[in-house]
Parts: sequence; C-alpha cells; structure tokens
Amino acid sequence: MNQDYIKPDNWSIIEEGFDASRVKSSESLFSIGNGAMGQRANFEETYTGDTFQGSYIAGVYYPDKTRVGWWKNGYPEYFAKVLNAPNWIGINVSVNGEALDLNTCKSVSDFKRELNMKEGWLSRTFKATLPNDVEVEVSVKRFLSLSLDEVGVINYEITPLNTDAEIIFEPYLDSGITNEDTNWDDKFWDTTAVKQNNNQAFVEAKTMKTNFHTCTFMESQVYLAGKQLALEPSVKSNDVKVSFNYANQVKQGETYSIHKFGGYIVDTNHDKTKLVEAATQVLKLATNKGFNVLLEDQKQAWANIWDMADITIDGDVKAQQGIRFNIFQLNQTYLGKDSRLNIGPKGFTGEKYGGSTYWDTEAYCIPFYMATKDQKVARTLLEYRYYHLDKAIENAGKLGFTNGAALYPMVTMNGEECHNEWEITFEEIHRNGAIAFAIFNYYRYTGDYSYIPEKGLEVLIGIARFWQQRATFSSDKNKYVILGVTGPNEYENNVNNNWYTNYLAKWCIDYALEQIEKVETEYTSDFNRINDKVKLTDDELEKWKAVADNMYFPYSEKHQVYLQQDGFLDKELISVEDLSKSERPINQKWSWDRILRSPYIKQADTLQGFYFFEDQFSDEELSRHFDFYEPFTVHESSLSPCVHSIQAAKLDRMDQAYTFYLRTSRLDLDDYNHEVHEGLHITSMAGTWMSIVEGFGGMRVKNNTLAFTPKIPKQWEGYSFKVNFRNQIIKITIEQNETNFELLSGNDLEILVNEKPVVLKSKNLSAVS
Amino acid sequence: MNQDYIKPDNWSIIEEGFDASRVKSSESLFSIGNGAMGQRANFEETYTGDTFQGSYIAGVYYPDKTRVGWWKNGYPEYFAKVLNAPNWIGINVSVNGEALDLNTCKSVSDFKRELNMKEGWLSRTFKATLPNDVEVEVSVKRFLSLSLDEVGVINYEITPLNTDAEIIFEPYLDSGITNEDTNWDDKFWDTTAVKQNNNQAFVEAKTMKTNFHTCTFMESQVYLAGKQLALEPSVKSNDVKVSFNYANQVKQGETYSIHKFGGYIVDTNHDKTKLVEAATQVLKLATNKGFNVLLEDQKQAWANIWDMADITIDGDVKAQQGIRFNIFQLNQTYLGKDSRLNIGPKGFTGEKYGGSTYWDTEAYCIPFYMATKDQKVARTLLEYRYYHLDKAIENAGKLGFTNGAALYPMVTMNGEECHNEWEITFEEIHRNGAIAFAIFNYYRYTGDYSYIPEKGLEVLIGIARFWQQRATFSSDKNKYVILGVTGPNEYENNVNNNWYTNYLAKWCIDYALEQIEKVETEYTSDFNRINDKVKLTDDELEKWKAVADNMYFPYSEKHQVYLQQDGFLDKELISVEDLSKSERPINQKWSWDRILRSPYIKQADTLQGFYFFEDQFSDEELSRHFDFYEPFTVHESSLSPCVHSIQAAKLDRMDQAYTFYLRTSRLDLDDYNHEVHEGLHITSMAGTWMSIVEGFGGMRVKNNTLAFTPKIPKQWEGYSFKVNFRNQIIKITIEQNETNFELLSGNDLEILVNEKPVVLKSKNLSAVS
Repeated sequence: MNQDYIKPDNWSIIEEGFDASRVKSSESLFSIGNGAMGQRANFEETYTGDTFQGSYIAGVYYPDKTRVGWWKNGYPEYFAKVLNAPNWIGINVSVNGEALDLNTCKSVSDFKRELNMKEGWLSRTFKATLPNDVEVEVSVKRFLSLSLDEVGVINYEITPLNTDAEIIFEPYLDSGITNEDTNWDDKFWDTTAVKQNNNQAFVEAKTMKTNFHTCTFMESQVYLAGKQLALEPSVKSNDVKVSFNYANQVKQGETYSIHKFGGYIVDTNHDKTKLVEAATQVLKLATNKGFNVLLEDQKQAWANIWDMADITIDGDVKAQQGIRFNIFQLNQTYLGKDSRLNIGPKGFTGEKYGGSTYWDTEAYCIPFYMATKDQKVARTLLEYRYYHLDKAIENAGKLGFTNGAALYPMVTMNGEECHNEWEITFEEIHRNGAIAFAIFNYYRYTGDYSYIPEKGLEVLIGIARFWQQRATFSSDKNKYVILGVTGPNEYENNVNNNWYTNYLAKWCIDYALEQIEKVETEYTSDFNRINDKVKLTDDELEKWKAVADNMYFPYSEKHQVYLQQDGFLDKELISVEDLSKSERPINQKWSWDRILRSPYIKQADTLQGFYFFEDQFSDEELSRHFDFYEPFTVHESSLSPCVHSIQAAKLDRMDQAYTFYLRTSRLDLDDYNHEVHEGLHITSMAGTWMSIVEGFGGMRVKNNTLAFTPKIPKQWEGYSFKVNFRNQIIKITIEQNETNFELLSGNDLEILVNEKPVVLKSKNLSAVS
Repeated sequence: MNQDYIKPDNWSIIEEGFDASRVKSSESLFSIGNGAMGQRANFEETYTGDTFQGSYIAGVYYPDKTRVGWWKNGYPEYFAKVLNAPNWIGINVSVNGEALDLNTCKSVSDFKRELNMKEGWLSRTFKATLPNDVEVEVSVKRFLSLSLDEVGVINYEITPLNTDAEIIFEPYLDSGITNEDTNWDDKFWDTTAVKQNNNQAFVEAKTMKTNFHTCTFMESQVYLAGKQLALEPSVKSNDVKVSFNYANQVKQGETYSIHKFGGYIVDTNHDKTKLVEAATQVLKLATNKGFNVLLEDQKQAWANIWDMADITIDGDVKAQQGIRFNIFQLNQTYLGKDSRLNIGPKGFTGEKYGGSTYWDTEAYCIPFYMATKDQKVARTLLEYRYYHLDKAIENAGKLGFTNGAALYPMVTMNGEECHNEWEITFEEIHRNGAIAFAIFNYYRYTGDYSYIPEKGLEVLIGIARFWQQRATFSSDKNKYVILGVTGPNEYENNVNNNWYTNYLAKWCIDYALEQIEKVETEYTSDFNRINDKVKLTDDELEKWKAVADNMYFPYSEKHQVYLQQDGFLDKELISVEDLSKSERPINQKWSWDRILRSPYIKQADTLQGFYFFEDQFSDEELSRHFDFYEPFTVHESSLSPCVHSIQAAKLDRMDQAYTFYLRTSRLDLDDYNHEVHEGLHITSMAGTWMSIVEGFGGMRVKNNTLAFTPKIPKQWEGYSFKVNFRNQIIKITIEQNETNFELLSGNDLEILVNEKPVVLKSKNLSAVS
C-alpha cells in the first residue's frame, strides 16, 4: 500500500517531493499515451538512479523464443513481448559542463510532478543544486498528441538561479535500448540508418524477426527568455544514436528552453521505404502548429473525451480521483481507431503480460467502450477476434481438435497463442466463453444484430465446436464433464469441472444453437454463406445438444452452493480473515503448490459466472455464493474487486461495495498489490467503471430497455455519469435522496428505474426520488 | 524401434556398416564408462557429420540459471546440468594432407563397431577412401580403465592400402567445448592454463560458478609397424587447446599407430593447486604399464565384476545380450566407490535429466547393487541421502514446512533441488517415500540394522514429519487427504489423493513410528543423540498417528480397485489397444493438456505400490489392479515395463512377463521410444535385472529368509544369476524342468523355494525340480 503518497485532487495526479525509491512507481503512475503509442514517465534528462525506461508503440512486438525447462508438445514457439521502442524523449542537459542528473544533484527541492488528466499532459518542476553548486530551476511539460498521434512534444525549460551559466541541451534519439524484462541483454532492434538534416534527425530501425520497420524522429527549437534562437547545433551520431548540441550562455534568472517534437512512424501505417519522408511530413505539421497550439488541440481533444466518459463524484475526492485516473488511462491506451489493436493488461505502462490481448477485453473492457464511445468501437473489438478466427482454429488443431473447433489464445498479439505455461495456455480455456459472451453482450446493449450474421456467428460456431469436443462423457457421473482446466481463479490449476467453465461451455453451445436458428430463419443468405464454409450437420448439432443438456455442475448439498471445482471441499477451508497477514499476499509468500492446494481464490470465479448470467440466479442464490466464496478470496488479481463491488451493491451491501470500489479504483494509485512499479493495471480499470455504472448505478439492459437501480455509497454526496445507449446519450445523476436522468440526444426513451418504467423526454430532465 | 540393427551376440554390442544417420544413436549405445568418468562413443578423428559430443566427469556439474516464462515462488534458482568436459580423445588424422573424416570420405567399407562387454573395451574398424583417393584401413580400440579410473587409453592404427602416404596423427586436448543442450551457446568452462612438456600436455580448466578445477591430460606414443618411434612432435596451442603433430611417411601396407593416454584429474580428489603434478603422476603409472598391460588389467577387472553380476540366458541370444548390456552399463555408471556420487538416469551417455540423482536410485537401483556387490555399496547409496538431510529440510522450509520436515529434491547434484517444473518439483513428492522405502528394503535384504540407529532414523523422522504436515484434513471426507500431487504417472499433474502417494505417506509414518520405538528401546544412546537434535514430542507423534490412521484411499466399489487418484473414473476409459497407433507415443503426438486428461499411464503407479508392498495385498487384488490399469499404460517411461514384467510373472502370466522383459532389457538396443540418440536409460536397467531376479526368479526376503519362486519363459532353455545375500553368494540356475541352487560361500543357508524351506549346504549343489 502506498496510501497518501499521491495528493488527492479531482483532476490531477500529483506527486510532491523527490523520492528516488519511488521513481519507478511514479514512472508507471504518470504514464502517458494516445492510443497509438505510450510511455512511462521517464525523465528527459539523464537519470542514473533506479529507473525503468519504457516507450511503446501500439502493435509493435517481438516473438521472444519460448524458453522452458522441459518442452511440452503444443507449446507456442514464442512468447510475444511488447518492445521498448527507441528513445525520442531524451534531452541531456549540462550546466557549466556538469550533467543535470537528479541522482547526483547536491539537493533537489520543490519537486512536483503532475499528470493533468483533464487536459492530457504531464509536467515536472523542481529546483536542484548540481555538484558544481549551480542552482537551477527546471520546468518540463510533455504530452503525446491526440490530434497527431504519431507525435509527442516536450517543452523543457531551465533557469540558472545563482549564477550565469553555459547550458547545453542535447536532444537525442537512441535505438540502442533493451527491454526491462530482457534476461540476457538481448537486443531486439536492428538499426538500419541514422540520419540528420538541419534540426531534424531520424533513426530507422526494424524489429528483429517481426520486421516492424520504424522511423523514430525528432526536431528541436530552442528559446532564450522566450525568444526562439537560430542556433546551429553540433551533431554527434553513431550506429544507433544521434544527438544535437545546443549550447548557450544563460544569464542568472534567464530561462533557456527547448521544444522537442518527436515520435514514431511505423510501416504498419506507411510505406516502409518512405518512413523518413512520412516523418518529415508529420514534423512539418507539428512544428507548423508549434508546442502551444498542439497543447490547445490536446486540451480540446481531451475535453471531447471527458464530455462523454467522465464520471463525477462529489464529496469524496479520492474516489473521484480514482475513477478519473481509470477512465483517463483507458483512453490513453485504446481509442478504437485501429482494428488491429487491442487493450493490453498493462497498456503502455510496462512490459508485464507482454502487452498482449487477454480475455480482459471481452469480459471487462467492452462494456466501458460500448457505453462511452460510438458503438462501432466495441464492434471493432469484436472484429479483432473475428479476424483471428482462422488462427484460433489452427491453435485448436495443434491441441488435437478438429472440424473447425476454435480455441482463442490466452494471450496474443496477432491471433497466435503466445503464452507458454501449460496450465494457462492449454487449460485456461474459459477465455473462449468470454469471447462468445461479448458477442451476446454487444447485441444486448447496442441492439445491433447485424454483427452476428455478418461475422459473429462463425465465431460462435467455432467456439461451440470446441466446447463440444472438449467435454468428455463420464460414465461414472453419467454426465458430460470438462477435465483438466484452469478457471478464472488461477490459484487452482488443472482442476476438473470448474463450475464457471462448465457453465460457460453449456451457455456457449446453447447460444450458438439459438443464433444458428435465428440466422438461418431471418438471414438466410448469410446463413448459407456461412454454412458453405462451416458445414454444419444435424448430427453435429445433436452432439452439441447432448453436451449442453447433460453438462455436469458440481454442487454441494451441504453448503447449497455450486462448487468452484470437483475437489474444492477437500481443501482446508480456512478463511482469509483467519490467515496471518504476514502470509499475504500469498503469491509473494507461498510456494506455488501451497497456493494451489489452498482454498484461496485469486479472483472471482463462480461469482464471475453469477455476474455474466445474473438473470439465471436469484439474489438469494447470489448471496449464498457470495458468502461462501468471498471469505476465501484474496483479490490478488486486479480483476477481482470490481466484480465483488458490483455483486455487493446488487445485494445492498453498500459498505462492502464501497470498500471494493476503492480497492479497484485506487489499486494502482495506492499500490494495493505492491507492484505498481511494473506498470498499471489497465484492463481492470474498465472494471472500476462497471463498479459505478453497473454496481452503484445498477445499469442493465433488460429486453431492449435500459434499466437502473440507483444506489449511492453513504460516503458520497452524489455522482453522475453518461452512457451512450443505442446512439442516445443519457446522463444520470445520483444523489443521496434523488436520481436525475437527462436525455441529451435523440427521441423520447423509456427506461426502467427500480423496475418501473420511466419515459425520458428529449432534452428534458426527469427526476425520480 | 530399431530392431535388428545391433547384431545379436552374447557378449558384445556390434554394429556393422557405416550409417551417418545412426551416428548419434550408436554414440549412445557404445558409450563407455568406469564409474569415475564416461563418454559417448564419439570418433577420435574429425567427424563433420551429425554428432553429439559428450565426455562426462562424475560429480562435475553446472548450475544453469533456471529459465522459465513465469517465475513461481519457491522455484530452485538453478537447473543442474551435467557438463560436457574437455575433449581428450581427439586425434586428428591426415593422410597426404587430407583430413580423415568419415563424413567426407569417398567410400567407407567394412565398418564395424564393437562394445566388448566381457572385457570392457570399445573398438572400431573400417576401410575408407579419402577424397584424395588414398585408401586406408583403420582400427581403434579404446577403454576407460577400471584400475586407474582417471585414465582412458586409445590405440589408433592406420594402414595406407593403395599407396605410400604421409600420415599425421594430431592428438589434442580441447576445452573449448559446449553442451549439446546449450540453448544459447553458453560456455561453461573457464580455461586457466594450457601446458605441455615433451609428449605430455595439460589443460587446466574450471567450471564456471561451481568452480570444479580440472586438469585434462594426455600423453602419446607412436609406432610404425609395431616399433615405437622417438618422434619430436611439433606443438600448437591456443587459449583452450593444445595439439601435437606426429608426422610420418608410411609405406603402403604398413601400420602407423598411436597410443594415447588421457583423462581427467579433478580437485574433488586432489589438491587444486597440484593438478598437473597429479596428472603427471597418473600418466607415469599408465605409460609405465602401457596400453597392453592396461588392457589386461581391464579384462581382469571386468571378469571380477561379471563373476558376481552376470546373468546367463540360454537359448535366447537377444535376451542374453539385453541383460548383459544392462548390467554392463550399470557397472560402467556406478561402482559404489565414492559416497558423493550417485546414478543419473542417463549415466555418462547423454545430458538429459541433467545427470542428476532421481528416486530411480532408491526404487530401482539399490536392489541391484545390494545383490551384486558388497552390501556397503547399497549403504553408501543410502548415506548419500543421509548427508543431504539438512538440505532436504531446507528445501521443505522453502515450501513452507517446519520443524525439521524434510522433502528430498526430485533432482539433485548436491542435495539441493535443481529441477524447475512446479508440477514435478513441488508436487512429485512420492520420491520422499522411495527414500524411506530403500532404508526398509536395505535392512530387509542385508539384515544390517545398524544403519537405522546410526543414520537412517533421522531421515525417516524428517520424511514422516513432511507427510504429516503435507496431509490435510478434509471435513467433507472425514479423512486426511493429500491434495495437489503428481504421482509416478507423470501423465497426470496436480491431482488429489494419488493412491500410491497416500499409501506411501501412511507407510512412511507407520514405519518411522516403529523404528523410533525400536531404536528407543534397543539403541537408547543413539535414540537420545538423535532426539536431542530432532526433539520429538508425544504430541507430535500423536499427530503422525492421526494422519496415518485416517488416511484416505480412493477406491471404486464398481471396479473393486483403488483409484490412481480422485478423478480417475471421470476420464474416458479407452484402452491403449483401442487407440490408433498413429497417436503414439502420445508424448510425441499429443499436447500436454490432452495427455493429462486422458487415462493413459506413463509408468506403473498404483502397481508400483503393489510392487513395494506386495505382502499387503493378495494375488487376486494384484490381478484385479493389473487388469484394470495395464490396459491404460503406455509405458512411455523406461521405468514402467520392468515393474509390469515382475507383476506379470508373479501372476503367472509368463508371455506378458516375457514381452515386458524384452521391452525393458532391449529398450535402448532396439530403441523402443525413439530417443536412444539422447543417451541410454541407465536406471531402468536395474529394473531389467529385477525383472529376471525378482520377476522370473521370484526372489524375495521373507522374515530374514531368502525366498524364490522360480519360473522360466518358454523361450528360454535356462538362465542363471548370482546374488550376494548377507555376505553369502548363492548361484541360481533355472531350467525348464529344474532349478539349481549353489551356495558358493559361507555356512549352510536355509532358503525358501516355492514357500518350502530348503537348506543349501556350503559348496554343495541343491537341486529342486
């Protein structure tokens, strides 16, 4: 926990005071991104202290050879890792020949870092005394442009405070970088050209193996006391690096500054033989606007995002800061502009989880994007999986499945599996269910059925085929069973009959059967096109039905609950409360075997099923399962508290819901799990949004009708959010004694509030007490 | 399968004809060793074809950093690997300036390789036409001396057949070698000195990290037409290599030959500052004897081994060759001279399994060594574990166990765990049981109780403590359960209540309790010494009893069998017979998850328990379990067929027993599992010995009495073996209609034959029909 380190503020993340031991954590917390690229909040100037350098380009990855002690058949050949890209933010600063380096300064004072979420920029100011006793004041502002998303801009200002001084800015590009997670100091970039031209420089580098061709570029302008200088820089370059040297005599109290424009051009969007030309063009656009105009554009772009996506919370600044941090980071990570991209669990803030796509997208992120963006963004996310269907079928084939059965990868960059723990890769197959569920959820929320006959049905068929083949018949139980799986609770591996997985499997088959019938009847030409390809037979569909109708669900008569898996009750059921705090987090204190045979649950598992399929269970059942499982849940996955917050709110356990809400929304800000230095938990941030909108707000769609059961934590005066429901914008404001619904666009809309119909009049405020 | 490639022969392994595609397989099959070192049958001269170079020094290993995708708490930091040691066998041969290389010769004829097991040497003869059209005849003989076990000797002879020729022998030492299993071309040796002196050379090198200091040495003598020459060789050397050049004009039909003496001096046996002196000394001993005297010594030493260890089989040369190959390789690997050494599953024949110690030693090898060597050899093997007890306690501590609980490593070089798959390292805990069982077995066979009060009891206590803590109470079953284990059948991972493991656990506790009582009563001073250290309390012993008395054993009423594990009956029970041959071996055809959820058994698991504890089960029970499990057993572990052969013989299923016998005894010779190129299966060779002695011969010890129930496969005319039982040598000869027992030493001995007492008179032949 890191409580109270980040200053509470409604719109900004603020750090005050320089603490070298927190540099890596703050580099994560102050990360910036624009959907196309992102970076950790590394310092521009040299920093010789402990740091984790990271700048990432969306979609650029490296297939690291899978290295395991003992190879197992079917292992993917590579583990995709997000690549630290060439450094373009670097500006060495020297003062009277001494490098400015916060790690070596005699003193640092008035250090303040601010991530302004409202306007989308990062700033840093400090005063420092260098080893040569020169005192300087530094002020830096940096952002990655939303309007020109290949460009980032820095304004770096320095003022000598106690003497005149010769100050040198040395902006540079450097492709001689490695990954933090590189075990063996491997290099992943092959630099092909280092060029410069006046104040511009370009480093062309391609990734090894994957051959992403990139051009990292920069251009700088220097100013003295606000007036641009026409300095001729001296240039240094080698095979991987180029730097310009802008030296100047600066009077005491006078400010010397540099505007550095930089970024990446990638051959995924440009002709790979013309990367430098493209970079020159984008630099021209950027420098023509200049730092200040780009900053104004940035504020406007973020204002547009916030207009739709903001959630306000009154009377609880930490809760407010938490939710905005979550919404901000989600939008920094993914904006839905590029169907080849997706949402990595750490976004652009670190390297863990390889920067790849997990089931987090379907289970957690899609609801957020559906409600806060145009519905085509969610559709684009669905299409990402559609385009990977062939690879999912190939992946299933490697594991012995046939006839078009599809197993989506647990982790992917391009549709191929790229994770290599057998207990995850081969066995955490419930991800297939989340992908089908997202199709159902998309239609339920948007009403856009067209996706299913056009694309979704093929995915549903591939997934249903997988489940039918994956289930096996137990003569002992006279039921279909699913053996050897890992459920969402990754603290159990290779278990039999994980209830969540079995339930999803049955649901997927039933849903696919329904949709086949509907498409066949109502979209016959689509059906024929699809069936020409997939060749369904009655015989096959009978097999699907047999599995779905005779699926086994482990149940305890004694506890009146579905069992998370067959062996759950054999465990020593000691609740988390009775576990010494010194033993936690168990993933840092216990060996793996001990975790596996313990009853402790990393994240919602049975309760995740109750969340997806809540209409199929009574509140009484939910309550019983919540009471049974929550006491064993250690929430060591970031994806756990949000589901618990929603379920607690549903059960009117508002104190618990509020505690879980804080835990999910401030997970990184308060560093609950002691790991923020590795990066932020981006995908769970969408869960935070759900905790408010679906949890406290109680938003659901029932029979094509938007429904709310508004509740409010006692700690709050009020909160508000907007949702885009089928292209109509509704603003909901919930206070302790009143809920207001405002229809901001479209025709009159009937919604349900606490199960009663209410008609929202166009542009009129409807109040319900 | 590789049937009929190796020529059937009673005493030799013979290959005829040169087949480049079989070079790696034959390098394994013709491996030589002397307990202190061993090597694959690599060619002395250059070979540019596909080869797997390996020369290994007993006890010299390297702690390779554990590399796994995702770290799990408690992982060992290293994976010990056996190290390919500097090459001392190399002799480059050039003929008129052309290198002799079987890969480039125009033709190779009359190629014959022989591993003479009776006398302990390897030979190779061939004729070849070099690219320069010179025809040569080559004859090489090599052995690793049993009498001087730091030394190996080569006699390399070459005769130009169609012309006079200048022939150069270039014997060399080379420490610039790598391991076959090196992923990243890492070097493991740091060469510190390369020295030469007259015809001698020395390369001093130490292993990185482990700092084993070694001196590899050589000395050569050259002969022309049988007469030693006093050539002054020219010398070349660099940082890692030294070679001598012995050039000579050789007339057509004349034989030029070299005797090369080489080997290793290691600081485990010598002062590390005086390795060259030690090497000089041993070279002096060796060269004073010369090649021919050393060869005579070798024959005598092997004659002594065979005198005790041989098994003869009449009327079935393949079976005879198989068993002798097994006995020979076991003796090449381990002779019981050094308590720091043990028996790696591949001995000195390859790198897989890291060359380390597994439970194979206790479960399979100890019976062989007990019966064919002085009983102190088996005691030495037990002591190996005793000396590792502290590390086993430390290892258990890393996994959360306390109070002196000991978990022996799955794989070790020095007592530390050095394997890194969690499902093996953390969960294949039954190894602890085999180590306790070996103590029981040693006393049962040798009658030497002294080991238990002196050393064994401490081991038994540490192991019992582990089991008591590892079992947990299931309120659901009202029994103690053992969750999350991998049994001997490694085709199931992380299962609950593996019957074998549960049974062993209970047995270990019961046996430890018995021995505590016995030692306390009969060896009170030993007990007090031990208890001062381990501090047993009544309270603790009560806990042990509670676990042992209330252990859960999964059982199927329907099938009337103990279940291999809780979930076994949920599997699709399709027998191996009904599985398409194209699917096998499943470890090469199926993905891991599919194997895990299949019913297929890699090696005896429940049946292994029936083997260890046969007195506790009726033949009818054995038969039922055999019939239930064997049909699912794929025998993809080398350790499987031997146990099945013994059990089948016990059940009088002689045809099955014979088939399993051939499979175990010729596993490598006929390459059943398509992997002999990786090395030989050394430890399972002891299982082959058991198949004959315990299986067909039916040897047991019952109440301190040696017992036999002799049977004979119909394919054999007769077979014979000797055993050392409590320092008396008994020879057993079994023919189709008669069994003869001969007591070769000691006083009259009463044995049981088919449960009836028979007295063997000293030096007299006793016949039983």
